[in-house]
Amino acid sequence: MADRLEMEQAVALQGEKVRKLKQEKAGSEQIAEEVAKLLELKARLGPEDGKQKFVLKTPKGTRDYNPKQMAIREKVFDTIIKCFKRHGAETIDTPVFELKETLTGKYGEDSKLIYDLKDQGGELLSLRYDLTVPFARYLAMNKITNIKRYHIAKVYRRDNPAMTRGRYREFYQCDFDIAGQYDPMIPDAECLKIVHEILSELELGEFTIKVNDRRILDGMFAVCGVPDCKFRTICSSVDKLDKTPWEDVKNEMVGEKGLAPEAADLIGEYVQNHGTLELIEQLLKDPKLSQNKQALEGLNDMKLLFQYLELFGVKDKISFDLSLARGLDYYTGIIYEAVLIQNQGAPQQQNDHAEESVSVGSVSGGGRYDGLVGMFDPKGRKVPCVGVSIGIERIFSIMEQKAEASEAKIRTTGTQVLVAAAQKKLLEERMKLISELWNAGIKAEMLYKKNPKLLNQLQYCEETGIPLVAIIGEQELKDGVVKLRVVDTREEIDVARQNLVEEIQKRTKNP
Amino acid sequence: MADRLEMEQAVALQGEKVRKLKQEKAGSEQIAEEVAKLLELKARLGPEDGKQKFVLKTPKGTRDYNPKQMAIREKVFDTIIKCFKRHGAETIDTPVFELKETLTGKYGEDSKLIYDLKDQGGELLSLRYDLTVPFARYLAMNKITNIKRYHIAKVYRRDNPAMTRGRYREFYQCDFDIAGQYDPMIPDAECLKIVHEILSELELGEFTIKVNDRRILDGMFAVCGVPDCKFRTICSSVDKLDKTPWEDVKNEMVGEKGLAPEAADLIGEYVQNHGTLELIEQLLKDPKLSQNKQALEGLNDMKLLFQYLELFGVKDKISFDLSLARGLDYYTGIIYEAVLIQNQGAPQQQNDHAEESVSVGSVSGGGRYDGLVGMFDPKGRKVPCVGVSIGIERIFSIMEQKAEASEAKIRTTGTQVLVAAAQKKLLEERMKLISELWNAGIKAEMLYKKNPKLLNQLQYCEETGIPLVAIIGEQELKDGVVKLRVVDTREEIDVARQNLVEEIQKRTKNP
Repeated sequence: MADRLEMEQAVALQGEKVRKLKQEKAGSEQIAEEVAKLLELKARLGPEDGKQKFVLKTPKGTRDYNPKQMAIREKVFDTIIKCFKRHGAETIDTPVFELKETLTGKYGEDSKLIYDLKDQGGELLSLRYDLTVPFARYLAMNKITNIKRYHIAKVYRRDNPAMTRGRYREFYQCDFDIAGQYDPMIPDAECLKIVHEILSELELGEFTIKVNDRRILDGMFAVCGVPDCKFRTICSSVDKLDKTPWEDVKNEMVGEKGLAPEAADLIGEYVQNHGTLELIEQLLKDPKLSQNKQALEGLNDMKLLFQYLELFGVKDKISFDLSLARGLDYYTGIIYEAVLIQNQGAPQQQNDHAEESVSVGSVSGGGRYDGLVGMFDPKGRKVPCVGVSIGIERIFSIMEQKAEASEAKIRTTGTQVLVAAAQKKLLEERMKLISELWNAGIKAEMLYKKNPKLLNQLQYCEETGIPLVAIIGEQELKDGVVKLRVVDTREEIDVARQNLVEEIQKRTKNP
Repeated sequence: MADRLEMEQAVALQGEKVRKLKQEKAGSEQIAEEVAKLLELKARLGPEDGKQKFVLKTPKGTRDYNPKQMAIREKVFDTIIKCFKRHGAETIDTPVFELKETLTGKYGEDSKLIYDLKDQGGELLSLRYDLTVPFARYLAMNKITNIKRYHIAKVYRRDNPAMTRGRYREFYQCDFDIAGQYDPMIPDAECLKIVHEILSELELGEFTIKVNDRRILDGMFAVCGVPDCKFRTICSSVDKLDKTPWEDVKNEMVGEKGLAPEAADLIGEYVQNHGTLELIEQLLKDPKLSQNKQALEGLNDMKLLFQYLELFGVKDKISFDLSLARGLDYYTGIIYEAVLIQNQGAPQQQNDHAEESVSVGSVSGGGRYDGLVGMFDPKGRKVPCVGVSIGIERIFSIMEQKAEASEAKIRTTGTQVLVAAAQKKLLEERMKLISELWNAGIKAEMLYKKNPKLLNQLQYCEETGIPLVAIIGEQELKDGVVKLRVVDTREEIDVARQNLVEEIQKRTKNP
């Protein structure tokens, strides 16, 4: 820290410069640049010796998980992974960052939310924005044409965080995808079956899975008179219908995006439709839509999908919804999104219309993207893909609220037994015994004190939920036994030392 | 892509600028800056429609994990996590990036290896360099004074990658740490017990755990005549002794770091010592070292540690090694490092001195860091900590080589049964049956074809290791049975449909 003084002077000078620019009302870009330099200098200066001046926090939009939250998270992951494995998926992993150019041109308007790494020499890198694009890059790079894989990992978006509603800048995605050329709608139906299984098993309350098809949307836009070049941007507007009233969406289409009002009105009529097989049949008879090749393909596939969903026994939760559009550019066929209808876990808010179910938002989405892998292949060879992504953060929030409301104590360790001493000077004996237990695979702890009081040892078990205490004292050592105490019932029995492992295993169902 | 042409022109212009600067032999910094601009422009330009021009790769020093590698990785993690849980640890998670200032001043010379994020407005962020500093930040931020936690996550270092030797820029660390004010050497001994358990269970061959103590090192430096201000830098030199001969290390100390040659020679005598209790006793009688308060404390604690290691039954693998120094700044007491002696899994290279065991490098390290949490606490309150980190990449490399050498087929899915059809037009029946199996928790797959050939269905099982096939045909449907075929033996039995789940479970040990 020889040059600390110099650094401090540099920070002071830069601070003055910024103040001056602000007084002079300089351009906001120039100010931003100088503020960035100031922050950089401050960061390099670091905290004073032994003290810290900066705010102790995690970066904006991120959070730590404490052991209780981790226990909930692991339970959710366990349910999801079990389901993915039940459907025969392998798993892969990819780096947290990709070459910047790998992500370029895949996300449309959302590209501005990508985190870039600083150019420190070498390659230009960005944090992954989702797991789908890295998956497509992986397939093309390894020339894989058939795989069923899951991938659970964090992704990064410089979005406006809304952490109470489970929206973070660093968040998990749990993705399941089927790549390969197969007969229509069979893998697509399995993806929906998977969403149905996971949301049912997590017991999050009622849910609906909305489905639509990009080909039906595009056909609809065509017959409504939307020019080809406006398909994607009008699609983005339609995507807002779950949060925005039709009037506002129409204003955006007409006012901002220059669509003819009559075209918007025609779209408005279509997008209020949602239903099941009957709606599909009705649209197949629609004089305009049925004449559009794309729409017809989409509708026929949708019909097939609903037959398959019936065979899978999940049709009851699925709604064919013409207002579903999905934001991302890369979808080419069926798209879907699962929404929870009511958060049964959360404490009931005052609600005068309790019978009216309230959507608490999307927890899963996905669709078919047959062109993405081809974007990475030197010869443009396509690998058809369909997949689903489970959004974990909102599910965590609900499970956390549920756990708090239920007041059930969540254990954060699996410790089966505490090795305790009844008298002083038994540290060495405790160490010998616990070592025997560890070597036999028993989950065991001891207090890191030379001479802990028995009461403190018992209290530790109460606090942390350890069910058994293996107590040794002079007498027990002489008799070759260990006193095994059941914390809940306070029952105590002497167990021969050679039977201790077996006795502990018998008394703790070890998952 | 309206402005693609403009972008292409900008790239061409910038390329010309760079070429000109190179011709003019401009300053390397200036060239680097303009090259960076060129790369940025190219990245923004992105691939041409339908084609890609860029190299299809993961960033330097990173890699994907394919399903086989993931199967090995999960096995390793499973062993490690089981051990951490056996010792009663909870788990936490922290974000992949931290405020830049959180990492500043913690890593000494290695700080230059930290990845920074680009300043896109807002906070200055860096990717985490290890899990220890985020842990200390977590403790200070949440005012936690006692915890035993593990954390398995990726960390990031802009080091020179040597991927064949398992050195990556993105790699996993598996950390176990005990925070709290406890009686001396009890948690420290448990950390070493944990390393011993994990390395034994992974069956990586022979290993040694070297231990030393920063207080013994500092005491040694003091009695050898190293000035206080040179302790850390001389410590860095000593740290190189595992890879560099003493003569070169001495040259660095004397030539580069200005240490008196006599002091270096004295250090040279000490650092060639390694042994166990006897060496500790011998050094406790060393006329100079025993007069140094720090060294004396360290030696007495080392003696206590060896007593505890004996009780834990792990003393045979531990070597008290005065040449062990560890690179990081934050250690304050005991330090350790586990090295594999010989890679038994790798194919034997031609080796004329087969009897000489070869160190294949460090797979684990750690130590006591009693001051780190205090650096984050506004009032400088200290939380003593000791921990261990298992380095996974090198272990993966060894396990991968082992797996390849053994030629044992690694399954990448757990699928128990393939639902197959004996005739055409049975897709719907397959879907009904597989749905029943999934709902009963059976791991089942089917081919995504309407009318797959039976032979293809059986081949799929051979290739992927699925042990059972549930075959339905017209006759089976009529009789209310399913033909269950054991792939290995080709045995076939008819099972009543209501008994199928039970029969599959009986025949596949479902872990």
